[in-house]
This record gives sequence, C-alpha cells and structure tokens, in this order.
Amino acid sequence: MEQFTPDFLQQFRSIIDSKDKEKAIEMLNDLHPADIAALYEELDLNEAEFVNLLLDADKAADVLVELDEDDRRKMLEDLPADVIAKQVIDQLETDDAVDVMRDLDEEIQEEVLSRIDDMEQAGDIVDLLKYDEDTAGGIMGTEMVIVNENWSMAECVKEMRLQAETMDEIYYVYVIDDDERLKGIFPLKKMITNPGASKVKYVMEQDPVSVKTDTPIDEVAQTIEKYDIVAVPVVDSIGRLVGRITVDDVMDEVREQSERGYQLASGISQDIESTDTVIEQTKARLPWLLIGIGGGIASATILGGFESSLATNPALALFIPLIGGTGGNVGIQSSAIVVQGLANGTLDIKNAWQQVLKESGVATINATIISLLVFLYNYFFLDNNAITAAVSLSLFAVVLFASIFGTIVPLTLEKFKIDPALATGPFITITSDIIGVLIYMGVCEVLL
Amino acid sequence: MEQFTPDFLQQFRSIIDSKDKEKAIEMLNDLHPADIAALYEELDLNEAEFVNLLLDADKAADVLVELDEDDRRKMLEDLPADVIAKQVIDQLETDDAVDVMRDLDEEIQEEVLSRIDDMEQAGDIVDLLKYDEDTAGGIMGTEMVIVNENWSMAECVKEMRLQAETMDEIYYVYVIDDDERLKGIFPLKKMITNPGASKVKYVMEQDPVSVKTDTPIDEVAQTIEKYDIVAVPVVDSIGRLVGRITVDDVMDEVREQSERGYQLASGISQDIESTDTVIEQTKARLPWLLIGIGGGIASATILGGFESSLATNPALALFIPLIGGTGGNVGIQSSAIVVQGLANGTLDIKNAWQQVLKESGVATINATIISLLVFLYNYFFLDNNAITAAVSLSLFAVVLFASIFGTIVPLTLEKFKIDPALATGPFITITSDIIGVLIYMGVCEVLL
Repeated sequence: MEQFTPDFLQQFRSIIDSKDKEKAIEMLNDLHPADIAALYEELDLNEAEFVNLLLDADKAADVLVELDEDDRRKMLEDLPADVIAKQVIDQLETDDAVDVMRDLDEEIQEEVLSRIDDMEQAGDIVDLLKYDEDTAGGIMGTEMVIVNENWSMAECVKEMRLQAETMDEIYYVYVIDDDERLKGIFPLKKMITNPGASKVKYVMEQDPVSVKTDTPIDEVAQTIEKYDIVAVPVVDSIGRLVGRITVDDVMDEVREQSERGYQLASGISQDIESTDTVIEQTKARLPWLLIGIGGGIASATILGGFESSLATNPALALFIPLIGGTGGNVGIQSSAIVVQGLANGTLDIKNAWQQVLKESGVATINATIISLLVFLYNYFFLDNNAITAAVSLSLFAVVLFASIFGTIVPLTLEKFKIDPALATGPFITITSDIIGVLIYMGVCEVLL
Repeated sequence: MEQFTPDFLQQFRSIIDSKDKEKAIEMLNDLHPADIAALYEELDLNEAEFVNLLLDADKAADVLVELDEDDRRKMLEDLPADVIAKQVIDQLETDDAVDVMRDLDEEIQEEVLSRIDDMEQAGDIVDLLKYDEDTAGGIMGTEMVIVNENWSMAECVKEMRLQAETMDEIYYVYVIDDDERLKGIFPLKKMITNPGASKVKYVMEQDPVSVKTDTPIDEVAQTIEKYDIVAVPVVDSIGRLVGRITVDDVMDEVREQSERGYQLASGISQDIESTDTVIEQTKARLPWLLIGIGGGIASATILGGFESSLATNPALALFIPLIGGTGGNVGIQSSAIVVQGLANGTLDIKNAWQQVLKESGVATINATIISLLVFLYNYFFLDNNAITAAVSLSLFAVVLFASIFGTIVPLTLEKFKIDPALATGPFITITSDIIGVLIYMGVCEVLL
C-alpha cells in the first residue's frame, strides 16, 4: 500500500505549481493507477485535472475508475462528451465503462454513446445499461475468451490470441455450444498444459457454476465466495452466455455491504467516511438521533403517567437506566445475529420459526441469570423488597421481550423484501427502551 | 448457490441409512466440494463420516477444507494421523494444509508431519506453521509458477508444464533473479500471446505489488482490493519470493473482519452464527449483558445519591431515558466512523487530532439542534422552566461529551495496538449512559 509522505506531496505540489510537466510525468510513471487515484484525493480539483491531462488516455481512464464516485463525477463534469467517449469509455472494459456511464446525466450519456468509435463496445454498453445496478447484469462485463465446444485445443489457442488482444486479464476460458449456451469452463492453464488436437469438450469442466443476469449482487458474492473462484459466468434466462463478473467487483460489494450493515447498526443512515465533510456527516447522523429524541420524549410521556408513583417511591427512578439499557443491549444482539445470518446465507427466511424458538431458549437462560443476579444484589444492598422484586421481574420480562422482538422485526422486514439491516441499531434500542420502561412501570404499579 | 430441498435431504438420508454406497456415490458425484460441505452441516457426525469415506481422497480433502472450523475439528478427531497425512494433507495445497494442521493438537501435528510422504511439502508446511496466523506468512501458500528473468518465454512454457502439474489454478507467473528475489510478474495469458524467444525480463511487468511475510492480513486485503488483483506475491525481509496469497483466502478475511466488527458493535463477544447452539450463543452474549447490568447498577447508585432531589422533583426522572439514550446513540455513531475508517484505511492514526476536531464540529451542530428542539417541546408541553433548561443544557453537554469520547476511545485503543472495534457498541453505550445521568443530575442540582 503506497503511503504518500508529506515530503512527496509537497514536492509534487510545487512541481504542479511550476507547471513542470516533464518532472510530473516522471513521478507519475512509477505509480499504479490506484495510487494516482489516492494521490488525487490529496489534491484539489484543478490540480487533479492538470495531472490527468499529463497521463496517457489508457492510464487516465484507469485512474478515473479507481476514484470514488463523488470525485469521479466532479472530474467528468468538466470533460466534453467527445473526450469522455474517446479518452475514457473507449479505453475501458465494458463493466468499468458502464460504471462511469452511470455517473453521467442521461443526455450526456446519449451524446457520449453516439461518439464511441467501436460500435460493438457501444452496443454492449447500451445493453448493459438496461440491467438493474444491483443485479449480476448490472456489474458484469462482456470481455471474455469464448470458444466452441467442438473446437480443438490448438484452434482455441489461435482464437484466443485474437480475442485476448484487448483484454486486461483472463482467468478462465468459457465454452459454448452452437446456440451460444454455456456448456463448460476451463482455467487458462489448460491451454498450456493440454495443447494439441483433443476437442475442447473433453478438456473442459462441465456444468460450471454460473449466475443469471437477474441474480442479486449479494448472491453473486456468496457464490464466488462459496466456490472460491475468481470470476463467474453470467447466463440469460435460456442459458446463453452473456457476460462474466470478476472477483474484484464483488469484493468491493462484500465490503460495502457489510460496512452498510455496520453503519445502519450504528445509527448512520447514509454511506459516509471519516473523510467526509462535517455537513455530510451531520446529514447522515442527525436523522437517527432525532428519532432517538422522539423515543426519549415518548419514554418521558409514559413515565409522566406514573409521576405519582415516582413521587411516592423516588427509588423507582434509580433502575430506569438499568431496565432500558438491558432491553436495548439484548435487542441489538438478537437482531445482529439475524441480520448477519441473512446476509451471509446461513439463515434462511424459511427457518424463521426455528430461529425464534432458539432465540427464546437463549433469552430464557439470559433472563434467568440476569434477574437472579440483580435480585441478589438488590436484596443485600437495597432496603426495599417490593422494588427488588419489581426490578427483577421486569428485567426477566424485558430480556424475553427484546430477544423475540429483535429476532422477529428483521425477519419480517426480510419477508417483505425490505433491507433487514434497517431494523438493527437505534430502532431496536429505542423501541426496547420504551417498552422496557412501560413494562417496569406496569410491574411497579401492580406490586407497590 | 445450491440449496438442498427437503426431498433431496430425505432421499439422501434414506440412502445413507440403507448403506447403499453406489447410489450415494452417484448423488455425490454431481456435487462441488463446497456443496458437499454444506450437505454435511445438515447431517450428523456419523452420517457425515460415512459419506466422507465414499469420496475419493482428493475430493474428501477439499470438502474438509470447506467445512467450518468446528465441524472440521470434529471430523479430524476421529481420523488416525496416518490417514490425515496421506488422505488429507497430501491432497491439499500448502495454505489449505496449514489451515487443517492448525486445527490439530500439537502432538498429533508432529505425528502427521512425520507421515507425509512428500518431503518438500512437509518442509513447506513446517515453515508456514511458524508464521503468525494473522500475517501474510500465516495464510500464504507455496504453490506458484516461478521462472527466472533470463529465461526465454518458450523455456517458461516448458517449465510451467512441469510445475503446474500439481496446482489447482494459476493466475500469474512470478519472475525471480538468480538470488530468488522477486523481480516481476506477468499474467498467464502472456505465455500464450507472447510465445517465442523473447526473454522473460522484457515481457514481465516490473516492480509488482507485493506484501511482506509479516504484513497483517487486513493490510493484505486492502492491497488486493486496491489494486484489483486476484493474487499477491509474498516476499521475505530481503525481497526473496516465498509465497502467494489468493483472493479467496482474503475475501473470507474481509467478510470475517467486518462481521467481527459488526458483532462487537452489537455486543457479541465471540464469532457466532445463527446456526450455533443455544449454549454457544449464550456464552457469546451473556458477558456483555452482564457488563451492561454492571453499568445499570452504577447508574442506580449515582441516581441514589440524588434521591432527595428526585423526591422533591419527581418530574426529573422522566428525562433519564432521553438523556442516557441520546448519549449512547451519539457515542455509537462516533465510534463506528472511527472503527470503520481505521479498518478500510481511510483514517490514519496520524490524523487523530484532525478527526477529533471534525467530530467536535459535527457534535456542536447536532447538540445545538437537538437541545433546541427539546427545549421548544418542553417549553410548550412541560410546565417547569427549571427542568426545561436543565434537560436542554444536559443534552448539549452529553452530545458533545459522547461524540468526543466515542472518537477518542477507539483511536486510543488503536494506538496501543488493541482492536478498536472493542470500543464500539455496549462499552460506549453504557459509559455514555452513566456519564449522561451524572451530567444531568449535576446540572439539576445546580439549577433546581
């Protein structure tokens, strides 16, 4: 991982300031596109645009792909459609080209498309843009080595030399029949280790793992992970080979997906980074805090209904944080287990009731231990048997409630095709907190 | 993704019960090792062991690698060392073999090692076992195609045919000099597209991305992600090529790492799945709940100190959940942003103070908006100006405190090389809750 030293940055900036192109090009030559992208993030837009003009088109396009979406959009805004078509899109593989195209406004998209020289690539991009962004079709590329099952391996090698010219990297060779249906796959290595006249169909692995164009991205990721492959072929509804997805695109997806779950669980509503501005961060964070405030005011209103009890027994108030906090902690745990199980495929919505049952088991053990310990503590240190009993009873009820509630809510969301991760974090904490207070005050009313 | 229907499972079980080996083998032949591993998870240990004996050694070993650690350990326990050596370890690539070896007790490890026929593989495994599990050395494998920079491409192809015999898949060819130092790399495709007499050193890409044996796994993952590669070479301290890490091993790591962060943030102390038993789940969850209970009792004790205030002004108690809850929510957000930034490399410990400063900005905006809104609400709906003022003042202080606390704690842990993810979730919630109550009661004492 390239880390830019302050010295390097200062030197580079002074070169930019003095417009010393040759020196700048020399420094850039040693850097990988991903590193140059990282460098752009340290520069301002003008500086980055100056640097971008110094790179050859191929490398400049690669850098653009590596940039994060916001930065890329800003740089693209300043480029004319013709330059985007010829200097960017034409230099990229189709999956990256589609990524860039999606950042453009629709009218500019049209204009860029009309200016792409390579008609085949333009056609592929138009087709790919039709797929939903969250499906295999939306992230696949069309660059692959495709051979017919009836060819000989020697013919394959010849054909591959033609096809592979324009491709960055190749991991597998895909085998189709005369109707373009995917029949098999073999690793590139076999072209070298199995030369000669034997037909492709005898060398290939049959029934290869594949995904459909409408397979959701998270399932694509699970497939690639499960079978430990570096690329997966994509077929249409009648089994014709239409594209391939490589592991690097999916790995970003795995990380983004789990970061998203983690952020939602932490009460952050949009994808933000520590590098985002104060305003962006506030926008992503304030909504959940306000919902929390709403919950707090709801608790206050509920407690207000019991104000006379609190006046007679002020010691009741001491245990409000204990009850509410425990409810929140338990609810978060339960929902996290469900959300994670659904995300990594170990939990199926079909087994929902089994999960609720198991969770009830865990809840009963936790509730028993917790309320017993608190009972013992209060019995020795709190000189009020009625409150001691009320606190332990409420704790027991709250733990049971929060466990089952935290399990059922994400399962229900999943059933209605809503992202279950929405149900973790603040939502569960706040609800468990309110219900906890309600249960506690209710029990106190009865016992005191 | 293969999903087993209840019908399939029932049929398969009845075949096992009737010990119909031929039928069982026929059903298994169609399945990928990863699918057979998933099937084992539906079977009990005896059934799985019966099935395992039916597979040929190569496939059985692959299935074992795909199993999750607990299940694998159970199956290995029932196998004699000789079988583990010849039927399992001998069939695997070194990185997978080391994974399996690490599951064994030390004495059994020794015995297995002494029974491996292939002395070179045994030597490699002994070397690999010395590396820390969490570093590049601990997950790398030694199977790779290595060529000398002075060879011709034609010599390469010949040499590769020899070397590649025993390897599953090959993505890159690694180039070394006469002292075994890594000099370059080229994708396998170049062997086919650049045949002939030109020397390797003119075809290869120079200065390839690489990691060191002691590079932590999360940095390896970041490197592979950043440069969009499917395997990365590993070099020792003087630059000699000693192994390679493939993306599939790293992808598991990315998922595990973010799942771990998510679990810690949700108050789950060990890696558990929804499929784990009630007892395992309870063991992973109860500790944090008990810490929460400790926090709740601390709150109760603090509030006890203010019991006379609560007796005079029972309405004070109404806002305890609001104050505590908001502190918890804010603290979680702040810590999540830091933990995630550290994990994905966008935040550097060197910029710690910048982050604290930025967080203070976000906190001030949030605190102002929140306390103003609650002030307006209470002003109109609560007939007590002193409490209205006290609640808003405390909220302001609590939001500021929790933001900065939630930022500083994970940064401090990182500095002392403790996993910062430990600081998210319950720890932050509980602490913010207690401090919140303390601030609130303090402010009330002064104002009322």
